[in-house]
Amino acid sequence: MEVTVEKIAQLVQGRIEGNHQAFIIGPGRIEDAAEGQLSFLGNPKYEPYLYTTQATAVLVQENFKARKPLSTTLIRVPDVYLALGILLEAFDSGLPAPTDISSQVFIDDEAEVDPSARIGPNVQIQAGARIEKGVVIDGQSFIGAQSVIGENTRLYPGVKILHGCSIGSHCIIHSNSVIGSDGFGFSKNGKGEFEKIKQTGGVVIGDNVEIGANCTIDRGSIGDTRIETGAKLDNLIQIAHNVTVGKHTVIAAQAGIAGSTKVGSHCMIGGQVGIVGHLEIKDHTHIQAQSGVASSSKQSGEKLYGTPAISYSNYLRSYAVFRNLPEQMRRIQSLEQEIEKLKIQSNH
Amino acid sequence: MEVTVEKIAQLVQGRIEGNHQAFIIGPGRIEDAAEGQLSFLGNPKYEPYLYTTQATAVLVQENFKARKPLSTTLIRVPDVYLALGILLEAFDSGLPAPTDISSQVFIDDEAEVDPSARIGPNVQIQAGARIEKGVVIDGQSFIGAQSVIGENTRLYPGVKILHGCSIGSHCIIHSNSVIGSDGFGFSKNGKGEFEKIKQTGGVVIGDNVEIGANCTIDRGSIGDTRIETGAKLDNLIQIAHNVTVGKHTVIAAQAGIAGSTKVGSHCMIGGQVGIVGHLEIKDHTHIQAQSGVASSSKQSGEKLYGTPAISYSNYLRSYAVFRNLPEQMRRIQSLEQEIEKLKIQSNH
Amino acid sequence: MEVTVEKIAQLVQGRIEGNHQAFIIGPGRIEDAAEGQLSFLGNPKYEPYLYTTQATAVLVQENFKARKPLSTTLIRVPDVYLALGILLEAFDSGLPAPTDISSQVFIDDEAEVDPSARIGPNVQIQAGARIEKGVVIDGQSFIGAQSVIGENTRLYPGVKILHGCSIGSHCIIHSNSVIGSDGFGFSKNGKGEFEKIKQTGGVVIGDNVEIGANCTIDRGSIGDTRIETGAKLDNLIQIAHNVTVGKHTVIAAQAGIAGSTKVGSHCMIGGQVGIVGHLEIKDHTHIQAQSGVASSSKQSGEKLYGTPAISYSNYLRSYAVFRNLPEQMRRIQSLEQEIEKLKIQSNH
Repeated sequence: MEVTVEKIAQLVQGRIEGNHQAFIIGPGRIEDAAEGQLSFLGNPKYEPYLYTTQATAVLVQENFKARKPLSTTLIRVPDVYLALGILLEAFDSGLPAPTDISSQVFIDDEAEVDPSARIGPNVQIQAGARIEKGVVIDGQSFIGAQSVIGENTRLYPGVKILHGCSIGSHCIIHSNSVIGSDGFGFSKNGKGEFEKIKQTGGVVIGDNVEIGANCTIDRGSIGDTRIETGAKLDNLIQIAHNVTVGKHTVIAAQAGIAGSTKVGSHCMIGGQVGIVGHLEIKDHTHIQAQSGVASSSKQSGEKLYGTPAISYSNYLRSYAVFRNLPEQMRRIQSLEQEIEKLKIQSNH
Repeated sequence: MEVTVEKIAQLVQGRIEGNHQAFIIGPGRIEDAAEGQLSFLGNPKYEPYLYTTQATAVLVQENFKARKPLSTTLIRVPDVYLALGILLEAFDSGLPAPTDISSQVFIDDEAEVDPSARIGPNVQIQAGARIEKGVVIDGQSFIGAQSVIGENTRLYPGVKILHGCSIGSHCIIHSNSVIGSDGFGFSKNGKGEFEKIKQTGGVVIGDNVEIGANCTIDRGSIGDTRIETGAKLDNLIQIAHNVTVGKHTVIAAQAGIAGSTKVGSHCMIGGQVGIVGHLEIKDHTHIQAQSGVASSSKQSGEKLYGTPAISYSNYLRSYAVFRNLPEQMRRIQSLEQEIEKLKIQSNH
Repeated sequence: MEVTVEKIAQLVQGRIEGNHQAFIIGPGRIEDAAEGQLSFLGNPKYEPYLYTTQATAVLVQENFKARKPLSTTLIRVPDVYLALGILLEAFDSGLPAPTDISSQVFIDDEAEVDPSARIGPNVQIQAGARIEKGVVIDGQSFIGAQSVIGENTRLYPGVKILHGCSIGSHCIIHSNSVIGSDGFGFSKNGKGEFEKIKQTGGVVIGDNVEIGANCTIDRGSIGDTRIETGAKLDNLIQIAHNVTVGKHTVIAAQAGIAGSTKVGSHCMIGGQVGIVGHLEIKDHTHIQAQSGVASSSKQSGEKLYGTPAISYSNYLRSYAVFRNLPEQMRRIQSLEQEIEKLKIQSNH
């Protein structure tokens, strides 16, 4: 795709300062963009690059004031990130989807597949599964018995959806994620050995959910594991049996949530966070990366940090002292010596 | 499956209080069960739900005393969880297995496959591999040269077993786990670059082992990585080269064990735990979630917590003070001021 | 392979003390090697095993002095690990590669595949992809549109390379890793819902890079994610959009690096480390396992530990006090009591 700056400004309702007729072939970052690329200035800390960038044009906030002369063309917009999103959408092609249903698939006669679905080679779909309108299933994926894939959802190559799971519409599930693996449930017998408890529940995923690559979302033991509408999960995340992740909650990579915990809506969970089982995390909770949450949150909107997690600001205050603990120890030793001296004096 | 409460009570040798002839169609959790479902009361904290549940029947401990009137039918049993296990086994169908050996597989002529094995489409089995009686290999899995899959073991879709690995009997390996990837071994050359050390060992997995989804178990560099009989591993776990995981040890999701460490039997390792290499962890050790174990354990039965991990109770005691470090700092400052005053006084 | 000790000594230019004509069938560890195996003594803590090992021969350092009588044959070499590497290379066969291009592949007519490439069954290669000389792609892998796999690179079974990614030459990517999944980028709309930002960049991987099993390396949002020449990544690692991992940097299992962070060359990053986004980590930085790096490093060669990470030695010093915080608390209480007594005395 090659378009003029003018055309781009129209797309995002921007105002041009510079060359209206220059050609743009794609997006680039302000610090390393090449000629022909369109860049943007969002975070002010990148402003110095604006004066040296090779980008042909740069999106800036409407009221931005340049402090030095510019050689690039500016496109002023009311919201840089919004404009950028519109442009990326226009430029991006994404992974080419299968054009139809491959002849090299294994679809059970008792599966129901909408004719508008597009399905890549080597996909297997078991009996009783239902693939709805506009679904794209890339090659090498697996859909288990009785599972449902909702309208316009896309499964990237290698996704495994086991039996009895329900995925909403307009979802995206990235490569090699596993939905509906067994929950981790065992009972100990008299010899200290573990015997498997059958995991009879499913996984229910709402609409507009995105799940990253190589995630694992276990089925419920009894009743379902739930990822509610609009939730966004990054890569390598573990969601255990019977967990609920609330609406529009965002979870960063490598976090894990243990069995039966209920996470509210609009939460932000940092990378590598662990949450123990059977807790309740209220709406709008923010959990700092690597924290280990060991008790239910007390009110919505809390910010948590540490292992076990406490309030974010308290953790940082305590950690500031922690960094100086050797010095603090020396002060205590010095106090003890002073006291000894004073005791000797007062005994005279 | 639809059965009467009477039939269920017979299966678990329970005693009915209520409607013997009501129909049960499946299991449900006491807090959200619907009519027609059978639920259970294990953890006493769920007792309030017993008085409001929609479940048609509820399994309770033999000697349970209700404190309010009930509308549900009770089935009294000697061990609720044991009874539940029996019932889930009866209700559960699980992922339908392939009915035979698919025609769309790639089985080398020099692989040995028992005719009772069932193998899904797009499975590849290399030369010298041996698939024993009753094995189920779901679609899209891979078995490398010389690897052995023991009797009645099941590999879920997408499992990759590389060459020279041995999996015991009655094991379960969940989707997209990788067994026998190379250990992470390099030597640094004079230019500070890393050169690969060939990884010549294998992975040996005992009987009755369960391994979750998206795990990685590396082959030994020299000699084998071992997961002993009855061990249970959750999802997204990393087991490095030459590690031994002892019998009946349980490891929660996202834990990682570095090279050559030997974990004893009957240990409980929490989620996101890391254990550094070349350690020895004795039998019956409990390691709290997110701990980082940096030294060998001293005796069996220890409970560990923290990074680096210390005794569980010591960590909690220290952490209790940590949470109040700013307050402690103020007390030290106050002591210093008092001492100054006393020194001035005593100099008079 | 069965060779004499003499032949082995020639391969590694070693000097034999013992039986030149004994036969060696493979490598073994000194602590559990069997007759017919060749072992080595690298780490001196394993020396006791030398006097009891069943190994037929053992590689030792040239100037090693035995302190007890030996029953095994020694092969003295200038560098034990170097010699071992040479021998493992000779003994190892590795996962058998496909012998040619399988007939059961899905290669788009517009993909370019060098005839010397070997490609296993059920591999899919999209339009515009280029597979160079000597590449080995094991079964069940996926190569997206416009992606390039450089000379002699090997992709193990189940690897998914999405579109627009470039992998260098002589790379190894282990099973089920995903390269080019979408970066985790969303913008919040007025209703607190997240809208996907298209991820238009790619992933660029240099030469001689090794990436473990079940890793996830996201494409850049705008511009590319980069793993530079010679970098080595263990299993289950998360690399977010627009990250750069510098040359010859080594990252242990389960570490994660958040978006746009630039890690220098020759760094050592421990297992389960997390690094937040938009940081710069200088060359030769060492980060201890499980650390959480929250700010850019100040100079090259730093050693970091803790969450948030501080200098390694400071963390250990503070942690030593942390372990005794309850005792320290008692000392403060005792000081407070002493002060009270002294104040009373001085008021008399």
